[in-house]
Amino acid sequence: MELAIAPILLMLLVLFVLARVFAAIIERFGFPGLIGEIIVGILIANIVINDTSLVTILELQDGTNNNSILYTFSELGVIFLLFSVGLETRVKDLLGSGKTAFLVALLGVIVPFVLGFAYLTCTGGEFEAAMFLAAAMVATSVGITARVIKDMHLMDKKESRIIIAAAVIDDVLGMIVLAIVKGIAGSDGGLDMIDLLLVVGKAVVFVVGMIFLAKYGVPRLASKWVSMNAKAEKPRKVPSPLVLAIICCFFFAWLAEEIGLAAIIGSFLAGMLFADYAETTGLIQKIETITALFISFFFVHVGLQVEIGAFNNLHAIAEVAIIIVLAVLSKYVGCGCGAKIADRSISRESFNIIGFGMVPRGEVGIIIASIGLTSGILSNELYSVIVMMAVATTIIAPPILSTVFRRKYNNHEYFEQE
Amino acid sequence: MELAIAPILLMLLVLFVLARVFAAIIERFGFPGLIGEIIVGILIANIVINDTSLVTILELQDGTNNNSILYTFSELGVIFLLFSVGLETRVKDLLGSGKTAFLVALLGVIVPFVLGFAYLTCTGGEFEAAMFLAAAMVATSVGITARVIKDMHLMDKKESRIIIAAAVIDDVLGMIVLAIVKGIAGSDGGLDMIDLLLVVGKAVVFVVGMIFLAKYGVPRLASKWVSMNAKAEKPRKVPSPLVLAIICCFFFAWLAEEIGLAAIIGSFLAGMLFADYAETTGLIQKIETITALFISFFFVHVGLQVEIGAFNNLHAIAEVAIIIVLAVLSKYVGCGCGAKIADRSISRESFNIIGFGMVPRGEVGIIIASIGLTSGILSNELYSVIVMMAVATTIIAPPILSTVFRRKYNNHEYFEQE
Repeated sequence: MELAIAPILLMLLVLFVLARVFAAIIERFGFPGLIGEIIVGILIANIVINDTSLVTILELQDGTNNNSILYTFSELGVIFLLFSVGLETRVKDLLGSGKTAFLVALLGVIVPFVLGFAYLTCTGGEFEAAMFLAAAMVATSVGITARVIKDMHLMDKKESRIIIAAAVIDDVLGMIVLAIVKGIAGSDGGLDMIDLLLVVGKAVVFVVGMIFLAKYGVPRLASKWVSMNAKAEKPRKVPSPLVLAIICCFFFAWLAEEIGLAAIIGSFLAGMLFADYAETTGLIQKIETITALFISFFFVHVGLQVEIGAFNNLHAIAEVAIIIVLAVLSKYVGCGCGAKIADRSISRESFNIIGFGMVPRGEVGIIIASIGLTSGILSNELYSVIVMMAVATTIIAPPILSTVFRRKYNNHEYFEQE
Repeated sequence: MELAIAPILLMLLVLFVLARVFAAIIERFGFPGLIGEIIVGILIANIVINDTSLVTILELQDGTNNNSILYTFSELGVIFLLFSVGLETRVKDLLGSGKTAFLVALLGVIVPFVLGFAYLTCTGGEFEAAMFLAAAMVATSVGITARVIKDMHLMDKKESRIIIAAAVIDDVLGMIVLAIVKGIAGSDGGLDMIDLLLVVGKAVVFVVGMIFLAKYGVPRLASKWVSMNAKAEKPRKVPSPLVLAIICCFFFAWLAEEIGLAAIIGSFLAGMLFADYAETTGLIQKIETITALFISFFFVHVGLQVEIGAFNNLHAIAEVAIIIVLAVLSKYVGCGCGAKIADRSISRESFNIIGFGMVPRGEVGIIIASIGLTSGILSNELYSVIVMMAVATTIIAPPILSTVFRRKYNNHEYFEQE
């Protein structure tokens, strides 16, 4: 047993304390705390003391125990965050914002993809690299937006529901785009239509199946349980809602990964299964407590991915600036127009909220970039540019989003962190 | 980024589901659920399907990601468990049961050590191996007993407080014994008195310092904060109690490990710092939620350490049986007599509760055994015997403890698991 808990505790302690302190400082200036947590990650990745980087001191290099534990904590953070977002999303409401959300998602996929692909092709980039950049531009990180919305206590607003629903549809569409891009990259030019149809089919069946389960299956199961207990002489011991919730969260997150979607799609949909019972059972508070333990590690981990060293020349800086502008504009215009087409009467404020709400690329963009890097298609420089774009959109979007939200709802109790 | 979340989620899911199902089954028969969770671990370690063991299928071999994540989860489980026990232990009460607890702990260390050492020396064992067996017999796993007590809602009883306090003192004494044994083993016969005094000194300073901090420091800090806020024009944002609690829990657990004690001693004492504020801030429920996520992995992990294969001959079976009997009797007699000496008026029931409450060796015995194995002093067979003893005392003690508790308090709401 060479494992020791002391270095693990030290790493968790240092990251947790730094993340919370920086989050509190950033909140003083009116920005969401998660930016402070991302900055902690960027600082740790780039600060060197006496020839030893903080990454080495915290034993976070690739392949170490601490690295895989930080990775697990950060993934569980975003999985439980999406689960708690799901807990507050009733199927009725999700289906209610259906058409608008679908159009927002669809145009939010098409516009960034076309712009991203066109830019890199026009500047002399290779076809396959352009496809990967385009796919990374498509991703929407609902985690970032969800936290801003939750911190502002605006989960019950119309725009919030459209954004969350659109982000889920966007994730599904984004995974299909990624599957196509990976398929093209892997097949040396020839795309396997059967594989493609399989991915599309699995994604659609999974999401529709979960919505069906939440709408019909769960209420039926719950009423059956109640009537069975009413008949029984001695009432059965009710299984703990928390244990059931954790099991479902892990199961559907795993299932989603297993069929080629993202774990967060599974945990979000799993949370939806419990939405009608989340308040009466105290599940919302309990899952928020667990999320509070894990989530800071996710944002620190996002920051850790940034290699500042890649931006030591004007060309790289100009390229990243252009791609960030394209990333923000394409999502803003695409998603905003999607909402406008679905509902002509939508106000300027709502257009802004939906447009900027879909801007952050977060972990999804970074994951796509790293897939491109490991398959040898993206250069190290282009990889860092995409990561920078994902981080920049993640940093830029929350303050803008909170401003446009405040303009509409005039809410002053924003950014209360657990 | 070669890390993938799917196999991690699968491992967590399978272990969590199995642990909770087996716990529920075992509870039906009136035993504490943790026995079911340990059995899950033993089964996983020993079941082989088509030449592939379940350990391999779940990717839990030594050195894998999943192995280090399970280890971390199991350690955090017992760290948060002891933190929540600390939350319910007020310093006043701890000091109130001081003399009795100290005598219980002292005799609970001396009697098992002497008996363990004498047995192995008399049966031809080596001096150093006998020292290690004796040290492993000294350990008390307060985690097991604490869970039984908490499940039975008997934390406020006199015996419970004596057991918890004695187990903490016992842990400190046990660590000193381990330090001496390690010192003897490492120094080829010559014991370094300075090292020994250093360990003893650190342990005493740490525990006394924490008790002092809880009794005087924390109340003063809290009242200063209140008066500072009363003076300020704009009240300062109060830091989240949960975040503060997690930070203190990690910090003191790390500190305890760092100075050579066990992490759980640190987290227990850290919990004590918050005991006066645990109910008003809702901390008890929140830490229990976090514990519910992690703790099952600890007991599964305990079970995983058992190698059934080592007990394929009569000699080994006889040896483990004798050592188990010695381990149970020596703690029962030592601790019970300790309580009797301190308080002549103590009833037969209280003698039984305190005696059996101190029996489980749990993780502490296993850790000592593994230190003995890796330093080359314990044979593989003797190592398995000690692990088996630790597990057996852990399995035997809870049902006896719950029976003797019930005999005294006639409590029928026992074993409600979160």
